[in-house]
Amino acid sequence: MHIDLDRKSGIPLTEQIRQSIADRIRCGLLAPGVRLPSVRKLAAELSISLVTAVQAYERLAQDGLVIRQQGRGTYVYQDETEAEGEAQTDWQLSIMDYVPRARFWQHHHLQSSVVPSVQLKLSAAEINRELFPIEEMAEELYRLIQKEPWIISEYGPIQGDAQLRGAIAEYLHRHHGIRITKEEMLVTNGSQQGIDIVARTFVGPGDVVAVEAPTYMAAIDVFRGRGATILSVPVDEEGMRVDLLTAMCDVRPPKLIYTTPSFHNPTGSVLSMRRRKQLLDLAQSYNCLIAEDDAFSDMYFGEAPPPSLKSMDQSGHVIYLKSFSKLLSPGARVAIAAATGSVLTRLISSKAITDLGTPLLTQKAMLPFFQNGRIEAHLVRMRARLYEKRNIVLNTLTRYAPSGVTWTKPMGGLNLWVSVPSRIQTDIVLGEALRRGVAFLPGSVFYAGEPESHHLRIVFSYLPDDQLQEAIKTLCEVLAQAIEQKKEEYSINPLV
Amino acid sequence: MHIDLDRKSGIPLTEQIRQSIADRIRCGLLAPGVRLPSVRKLAAELSISLVTAVQAYERLAQDGLVIRQQGRGTYVYQDETEAEGEAQTDWQLSIMDYVPRARFWQHHHLQSSVVPSVQLKLSAAEINRELFPIEEMAEELYRLIQKEPWIISEYGPIQGDAQLRGAIAEYLHRHHGIRITKEEMLVTNGSQQGIDIVARTFVGPGDVVAVEAPTYMAAIDVFRGRGATILSVPVDEEGMRVDLLTAMCDVRPPKLIYTTPSFHNPTGSVLSMRRRKQLLDLAQSYNCLIAEDDAFSDMYFGEAPPPSLKSMDQSGHVIYLKSFSKLLSPGARVAIAAATGSVLTRLISSKAITDLGTPLLTQKAMLPFFQNGRIEAHLVRMRARLYEKRNIVLNTLTRYAPSGVTWTKPMGGLNLWVSVPSRIQTDIVLGEALRRGVAFLPGSVFYAGEPESHHLRIVFSYLPDDQLQEAIKTLCEVLAQAIEQKKEEYSINPLV
Repeated sequence: MHIDLDRKSGIPLTEQIRQSIADRIRCGLLAPGVRLPSVRKLAAELSISLVTAVQAYERLAQDGLVIRQQGRGTYVYQDETEAEGEAQTDWQLSIMDYVPRARFWQHHHLQSSVVPSVQLKLSAAEINRELFPIEEMAEELYRLIQKEPWIISEYGPIQGDAQLRGAIAEYLHRHHGIRITKEEMLVTNGSQQGIDIVARTFVGPGDVVAVEAPTYMAAIDVFRGRGATILSVPVDEEGMRVDLLTAMCDVRPPKLIYTTPSFHNPTGSVLSMRRRKQLLDLAQSYNCLIAEDDAFSDMYFGEAPPPSLKSMDQSGHVIYLKSFSKLLSPGARVAIAAATGSVLTRLISSKAITDLGTPLLTQKAMLPFFQNGRIEAHLVRMRARLYEKRNIVLNTLTRYAPSGVTWTKPMGGLNLWVSVPSRIQTDIVLGEALRRGVAFLPGSVFYAGEPESHHLRIVFSYLPDDQLQEAIKTLCEVLAQAIEQKKEEYSINPLV
Repeated sequence: MHIDLDRKSGIPLTEQIRQSIADRIRCGLLAPGVRLPSVRKLAAELSISLVTAVQAYERLAQDGLVIRQQGRGTYVYQDETEAEGEAQTDWQLSIMDYVPRARFWQHHHLQSSVVPSVQLKLSAAEINRELFPIEEMAEELYRLIQKEPWIISEYGPIQGDAQLRGAIAEYLHRHHGIRITKEEMLVTNGSQQGIDIVARTFVGPGDVVAVEAPTYMAAIDVFRGRGATILSVPVDEEGMRVDLLTAMCDVRPPKLIYTTPSFHNPTGSVLSMRRRKQLLDLAQSYNCLIAEDDAFSDMYFGEAPPPSLKSMDQSGHVIYLKSFSKLLSPGARVAIAAATGSVLTRLISSKAITDLGTPLLTQKAMLPFFQNGRIEAHLVRMRARLYEKRNIVLNTLTRYAPSGVTWTKPMGGLNLWVSVPSRIQTDIVLGEALRRGVAFLPGSVFYAGEPESHHLRIVFSYLPDDQLQEAIKTLCEVLAQAIEQKKEEYSINPLV
């Protein structure tokens, strides 16, 4: 069992080990009844003291996640009814892995089949099916297959289909004022793979990566998986606190800065023009790369956000990651990574080793929408619908949220960020919400460093309008109950 | 510039550095005119002596790949007509990357647009378009899109579409006697991603991976990219020399064994039943994982190969990688990785971080062929055509190959392995072959350790029959010429 310990984080090692093993148990990576490594073995593997190892296991036992049996060892808790006897695959636990904190997967898992009672998903950053032009896409695809059936079978270039790259280049120029040629683009399987390819190309053990705090949780896992040292930079209404990042650079400049400047996930904030310029200056001064994750800039409700970092970059510091999952189709897994010079060629080289290229069929399926200008009409419709959905959430919160709860009012994107009184832990509230059929992501998953546990993220783009209202109302009730309960505990014992 | 140096390989450091930089220049990762790090910087970065760094640059200069200018530095060679002045992205070279030897990409690159004169590709392990049931697949896909247009847009499960996994499970049971449930499968973007996910999950710096020598070149790059220590195990007519691997285990048992037991790439050999059992025993004794790459077992010309390792595995040691690129569609990038226990859950966890799952559309496009039993008829046709193509190559070689050239006679798969007299280097012969319009992969790219340079791989599945014959004939002429030339050199100076 490989656990990445960060000895500079200020979080006690016992706590880091406990958290990591707890995550693995909760998401099923460690199955019920499995025997954990002996205290001695764990201590040796992680180069920690025996005392630290014992403490971590004891904390897990207190949480009811493991059972410690004198002389026999430590086992993942298992219902007696589930117990089966030693499995033939138990030896596998001795094989150390390099899977980072399984946080992201855990939550993905949690929202799908595992908790079948959850009907109201405020958790997944997805867009409701009815907002996509599916019928039109199906028609276009049919026409394409008739004309060129070989697109089902043939390999595309590793860099991606040239026609699609050309059409996307035009789109980005028209809509975002970014001049990127099709030669400067790499097609990836969604931006998730874009982030992963940037990391596997440029991030190695001990390299410093700066991210926003909070930030997209699956990006944290990717950088962790590469053994990076992660700098967390706070976010306010104007986006990433570039002033704080600058101060950090004096000590240890990052090699890579990962940022979502427009309609930041999870807070919805927009990086101001002033800070955009500062960030680019900083990248130039310290020769660092910026990975600009631009998934949401098309989904604005009022004015478009300021120009992307990429459009202002003269010197090849910005790797621009553009997902089309939010714009057209999440399931097609088509996105681009744009860069210049040797940064681009190295990314393409990594893509080859990763999977030999994105499927041609899904790339061709996206093509007509970029070519015939239909995307404009679709975008206008989609923005209007997302705005309505955002307003349903804001209105319902205003009406039902208990006092002490606050939230952001994003002018674009898919989500907003709710803050509850600091004594309330949203990780714990989640349990009750799930029992009542509502899923959300607790704030803690969005932090690479010390987590802030009194936030939660609401996605307003997924549920149908009526369910959205119901979900928010139920969430408000659950929060009110949690706040009430804390007050009672407090009145009994003010030291809690 | 990150160069993985293997200080135990027996290959001089100067040579390793020279090779790595030469690869980067040849494949365009280092563009003409780019300035290389100073000797001092290179020495510091790689922890080598100044003398070693100077020697590496001087060897590159002798090969005409770089130009050393007194007091100015070392530059990648550039035609004067191409010269442009310092690019704004030159600073990028200071960003160290983790791209392994760019060998694989180099050769992929070489075969496509870069050398437009190459008409006769004996190099790519692809199957000619006419051998795939493209029209039928297009029809089925059309029907599917009409019925369920949302498959273009919707996310599938991270583990892969359940219907497809079920259909593949039945196929594997029927055709290969493997009992794998759909729960034990993960859909990947081709087996390339399967190998990559196995590596990123279980292979880290210094972990030992055993591979065949020769082996699939892109697997070498994947394991190198993870910082693995690679053990090369020789191959003979019965496949991997398991006896030699066993001897190596006494010194340092591998954590992972990567093997292609049936119709090995590049030699075409088949691992005998006896050795399959030995290999499984060995994995059990030393608790190592086996990644079984089973891309070619359906393409047999006589008898089917022995049962897969996976079908004999009782204890979860085998991760079974099955590509459908050769069977149905290379461009759809659909393959599976099958495993059990916590090995499986950890692989799925990695897949989530990698790209959130394989596109639903391409998975659904493959589905009808597994469901309606059409794959049987398709396979019978495909085997017969591949057998004909193999025979064209064997007959043409018999007729035209110069004396001293030998080759394997594989009973399945897509390729055969040609050996030339040991004084001939196929890397050098490749240049002349390309000029005459024929591409092949030189033997050296298939070795993780000390390369054997007097082999080459011929793929017989890609070219149409008449072109196949022409390509082999031309290749024989080029080889004859090279052998003749060596004889002349030898008669002038017997020490060459």
